[in-house]
Parts: sequence; structure tokens; C-alpha cells
Amino acid sequence: MGTQNEFVQLGHGSGGQMMKRLIDEVFLDAFGSPELFAGNDAGVAELPVQAQLDSFARSLGASSARAVASPVSSSAPARIAMSTDSFVVTPQFFPGGDIGRLAVCGTVNDVATSGAQPLYLSCGFILEEGYPLSDLRRICTSMAHTAREAGVRIITGDTKVVERGKADGVYINTAGVGVVPTEVNLSGANCRPGDLVLVSGTLGDHGIAIMSQREGLAFSTPIESDAAPLNHLIAAMLKAAPHTRCFRDPTRGGLASTLNEFAQASGVAITIDEDAVPVRPEVRGACEMLGYDVLQVANEGKIVAVVPAEEAEAALTAMRKSKYGENAAIIGEVSASSEASGTWTEAGQTDSASNQPSSAAIPAGSPGSVRVRTPWGSTRILDMLVGEQLPRIC
Amino acid sequence: MGTQNEFVQLGHGSGGQMMKRLIDEVFLDAFGSPELFAGNDAGVAELPVQAQLDSFARSLGASSARAVASPVSSSAPARIAMSTDSFVVTPQFFPGGDIGRLAVCGTVNDVATSGAQPLYLSCGFILEEGYPLSDLRRICTSMAHTAREAGVRIITGDTKVVERGKADGVYINTAGVGVVPTEVNLSGANCRPGDLVLVSGTLGDHGIAIMSQREGLAFSTPIESDAAPLNHLIAAMLKAAPHTRCFRDPTRGGLASTLNEFAQASGVAITIDEDAVPVRPEVRGACEMLGYDVLQVANEGKIVAVVPAEEAEAALTAMRKSKYGENAAIIGEVSASSEASGTWTEAGQTDSASNQPSSAAIPAGSPGSVRVRTPWGSTRILDMLVGEQLPRIC
Repeated sequence: MGTQNEFVQLGHGSGGQMMKRLIDEVFLDAFGSPELFAGNDAGVAELPVQAQLDSFARSLGASSARAVASPVSSSAPARIAMSTDSFVVTPQFFPGGDIGRLAVCGTVNDVATSGAQPLYLSCGFILEEGYPLSDLRRICTSMAHTAREAGVRIITGDTKVVERGKADGVYINTAGVGVVPTEVNLSGANCRPGDLVLVSGTLGDHGIAIMSQREGLAFSTPIESDAAPLNHLIAAMLKAAPHTRCFRDPTRGGLASTLNEFAQASGVAITIDEDAVPVRPEVRGACEMLGYDVLQVANEGKIVAVVPAEEAEAALTAMRKSKYGENAAIIGEVSASSEASGTWTEAGQTDSASNQPSSAAIPAGSPGSVRVRTPWGSTRILDMLVGEQLPRIC
Repeated sequence: MGTQNEFVQLGHGSGGQMMKRLIDEVFLDAFGSPELFAGNDAGVAELPVQAQLDSFARSLGASSARAVASPVSSSAPARIAMSTDSFVVTPQFFPGGDIGRLAVCGTVNDVATSGAQPLYLSCGFILEEGYPLSDLRRICTSMAHTAREAGVRIITGDTKVVERGKADGVYINTAGVGVVPTEVNLSGANCRPGDLVLVSGTLGDHGIAIMSQREGLAFSTPIESDAAPLNHLIAAMLKAAPHTRCFRDPTRGGLASTLNEFAQASGVAITIDEDAVPVRPEVRGACEMLGYDVLQVANEGKIVAVVPAEEAEAALTAMRKSKYGENAAIIGEVSASSEASGTWTEAGQTDSASNQPSSAAIPAGSPGSVRVRTPWGSTRILDMLVGEQLPRIC
């Protein structure tokens, strides 16, 4: 992407291919930290061990008894997970949630996907002059409620106000920090052939709820956002399936982006069964009416997990017992992806000649390495979104 | 503040009294964490000790040898400092800096004021459709450069795009995390009578640089923003003056807000000597022309410190040896503030009858507990800004 004469487009915020290009070619190019290159939703990094802390303290002159007496050097360095999201959703209040609940859930979930225990949040508000304080208070109450549910504390914050017309009511950024237990090492790069893919519930609810509210669509069954904090569900799953490879919440770009990111990071192919993916009938109907692929629609209270086959049933049971996992399902599997690409299919072209995933012939991580097995036995490629489907979803 | 029928005003982002009211009555009321109530620029909170981490790991099923073999329980809990700021400055490029340098410095400095060693940053971009990618790349290069200077890494990020007209080019949020050494315990509530007040250099440079650029004002000597990462300066000061009470960077609201916050948190009075405050002549001239009190103008590369008198010279020397502290000065002192308020002066009323600070008769933390001793021997009250002086300064 030659950035001369190029401009930000809505698609750069889509969670799909354009956003990935922007991240790779602008942000990674400039910032280039190993944590960013790892490509997970939370950056995991080491804190100095206690002995180093004490040394830093001594270098500051704080050479008191306590700092010197307990130079604990035997412990492994603690690792923190950190993540951030800005929230610009419109409308700010919608069935099933609001921008405040989203702002807490989004960051809690991103931190939790690293296997960390989320502990603390920061919160930055950008307010437009003229925004009703009663709405702001309602948003804050929702944030506080959601933080309590997740078991995290908001410990620092910031407020900026911009002139009327220079923002759109309220934008909220949250950043979150958690600690990663010593033995936990999750990454989208960990998937191995034979692993199974699980999802914690119905897909597409958030995206369709926002779209319905925005466009004034009415369905016989109201569609609500699924916005929910998933850290307790993830902790329960990790206990039941300690060798889980990775978690990711399929937000912008939906399941399609998540699975393509996993396939690319791990150099594997992934095939899911369309029939196995839980979707509410009303959401499926809305997607058909609006021309969306539900697998590309955003979720805000769902988790995708890749788990070794032998732990998949235990993981599924743990999910289903959790508050937000009653509709969990095993939806697909990971397979090897050959470097030989003689027969690989162009992105978007349906591979209907075979009811086997042809992923063995697809270059690792290429477009086409994620496939959907349709109910009638064919497979189709599941690509990341190219442009923008629905801006301002979160 | 009854929030019914009230609306966000520019003054709510000023760093002055209106912002304080908004924080107290909306954010603190909703979130109410002890870290927020402490009222410092960074929230300081404990991480679970290693033994608790291991216990959490075991509860997740990760009962491997390493987690069990080293349950380090003797160490004190590690403490992290976390802070966040959103940056909405306009213009985004200005003499002496840009929004990217500000976004790194602002958060690094807020974390460092807790005495922590800043380590990691998150970064959230809100981009307006149509923003030039070349400008975005320039901002990111500046952020990367500044992060290297400060010795911190950007480990996680987020990108949102809003439609044309729904933002103002680019807004950036950063959050930062650092570790607080065991013996360090800084807070604006620590000031004691007899302490001295130091500032690390000339005041008002950032605010006047932005204002000049925005209004197209030309001065014979160009005025540049002071935006700079101050963590190395703070570490050097803490080494030289280990009993330093507190640091704060006087950004929005300037020195006036910082000193009033200290006075209120500590229940003391503070008096500064106007003559002792370093101000560049061209900044002083601009302030006189524009009708600003330079003590209320924003800085982005300055630190205010309160230090016990016996360590003040050492602190000053350390500041002056640091890269961004050559113009450091001792500018005032802390005194007791009596609860008896018989003679206390109304805010804004000049106490010209005496060349002694009358702070002994001022209720702790009241408006009026910060005073300026003028060159001709009188004193005036130094209040926090009431409304907004200059929006979008950072």
C-alpha cells in the first residue's frame, strides 16, 4: 500500500482484509513490537521479576530494609496481557446493550482470550459538546454494572470534549490489563491438524441487532445484541480443556475473520460445517433479507476456541454450563495445509466438485484455507470481508 | 450537578473546575473504585502475588510441575500503574510536535508520575474516512520514535473508522502500564507543610504553540511545544530525592490545576513566587496579548514535584542535569491550612494587604488555598480554570 495519495476508507475499520493491510503496512511497520507481530487480540508481555523491581527501586534510592530483604529472584517473570478497543457504535443504545456495556465487554473479552484473568480497565471518553449528561450517566451506570459482572475495576480515566459537530455524541476507549498464569500460553498460531473448532453460541446477533435498530427494521422476534463478558466462561473452559490452543471473540469481520486469522497464523486449513453453526432463525432470516453472510457478521458475546480433539467434549460441556454458553457447539476441524499449491482454488470460487475440503492443496494461510461444508455436501471458501459490511458496529 | 437537562460543554474537558465536577459527579459516582478516588493521574493497583497466580493457574487445570514447584509466596504483591489519555488536538501537526508524540508523552508521563517505570502502551485510533494515510504514517513514525526515546513498547492496538464528518481526522487514545517499585508511594495527598514546590522548566510553551499555530499568529521567536517524555527525568529525581511526595504533569489547566489538586488532596496551602516561575519571554508576551494567565496554560513536557525541603536542592540538581530539565526551578512552598476560616478570602479576591500568604486561615483544599506572591509583595489567589480556555489542546 503506497500511502501517498491514499486515504482512510470505511473498509479500513471493517475487521477484514483492508484493516489487516492497514495494520500490517502502517502500524506494524512503524511500531514493530514482537507483541503486535504475534497478531493476537491482547499483547502479552513480561513484567520485570521482583528482583529487577527491587533493583530499579534501589536505583531510585529506595534502599530500605524491605526492598533489600526480599529480593525474590526465583519466581518466573509475571506476564500481563493488555488490550484496547475504541467504541464508536451508533446508535449508542440498542436492544440487548449500549456502548458502555460493549466498551467493557470488548476489552475484557480480548484480555481473557489470552487466558489471562482480566483485572483492571482504563476508560477514555471523547464527548461531543451538547451531548446529554443523562445519556452519559446511563452509559457509565451500564459500564459499572458490566465491570462488576466481569469482576474488573476501572482504575483510571480521561475525558476530552470536542466542539459540536466534531464527533458523534460519545466515543469510548477502554484498555484492559490482566495477569497470565505461568502455564498458560494461548495463541492463534497454536492450531494443529486434528484440533476441533468450537463456538460458544449463536452467531450474528450483535450485528443484526445494530442493523435493525439503525434501519428501523422490525422482526416478529426482536433481535438483541449478545454483548457479554466472557472471562468466566473462558476460565471454566480452560479448566476443563487445559490444552486449548486459542480463543478469539469474533467481533468485526465475524467468524470468517477469526478463522482466517487462525489459519494464517498457524499455517493450517480449517473447515466448518455450515449446519453445525448455531444461528437464530430470525438472524438467519434477516441475513438472507439483507444479503449478509452471517459468518461475517459481528458478535460481541461469543467466543471461538480451537481445542485438541480429546478435550473437545469437556470444553463443550464447560461452555454449555456457563452463563453465556448454553448454545455452544463444535462446528469444524483443523487440517494440514500443504505448501504445494497445484490445485488451489481462487478466492471466492466454489469448490463444488468435491465434498471433501480441498484444503490439503491450499498454501498455508492463503485465502481459501478456510472452508465451509454446506448441507448439500459441497464446500465453499470462507473469506475475510474485503470492504466494509456495516460501519460503526462497535 | 443534576444531569437532567444538562449537556456536555467544552468546559467539561478543560482540566479545570467543570471537568472536576463531571468526574466527581458522573464518573466517580458510577465507577467508584478506590484507585479513581485517589485522584492521581495514574491508577495504582496490586497484581496478585505469584502464589495467587499459581492458584488461579491450578484452578484452570494447569497443574504442571512448574506452577506447583515455585509457589513464591514471600514476595509483596507487584503493583502496576495504569493511565490513559485520548488525544484530540488540533492542528495535528504543530511546532515542536504532533498528535503522535503527544499521545506517547502524555501517557508515559502520567504513568511515570506515580513513580512507576512505564513499560507498555496500547494505542487506539479513531480515523475519519478520507484522512490521508500519509499523515497517519507520519503520526505513527512520530509515536514510534517517541516510544523508543521513552523506552516503552506499543504492544496492542485498535483501529476504528467513522464516516466523513463524524470525527475530525484522527483521535488517538493511549493507555500505559508500568510497575511501581516496592518502596515508592507517591500521591498528591502526600504534601506536608514545609515541603517545596519544583517545576522542571518553562511554563505555557505547549498551549501557546498550539494557539499560535491555530490562529496563525507569528512571533519574532517561534514558540514550540514542549511535548517530551519525562520518565527518565522523574527516575533521576526520585533517585536524588527519594522522599519526593508527588509528581504531576501540568497539562490541561496548567500549574493552577495541578497545585489546587495537590492542595485539596493533601489539605494544605501552597504559595508560589510569581518571579520564580520560569516563563519564556515570548510566551509571557503572547499570554499578555491574548489575556491568558500563563499559570493556567497547558504544558506537555513539564513536571511539578513536591519535595521535602532537605531534598529540594538535590532534586533541583537532578532535574537540571536531565535532558528536559535545564530550566528547572524551586517556585514555592507548602504550608499548613487551618480549618478555622474566619478570615478566609473569597476566591478571586486579591489579598493585597499582606505580603505573607494568608493560607493559614484558609480551609484545607478550598478555593483560595493556592496563592501567588507577586513581585510587588502582594498575593493573589490562583484558582483552577472555571470554563474552557483553549479547547483541543491535547
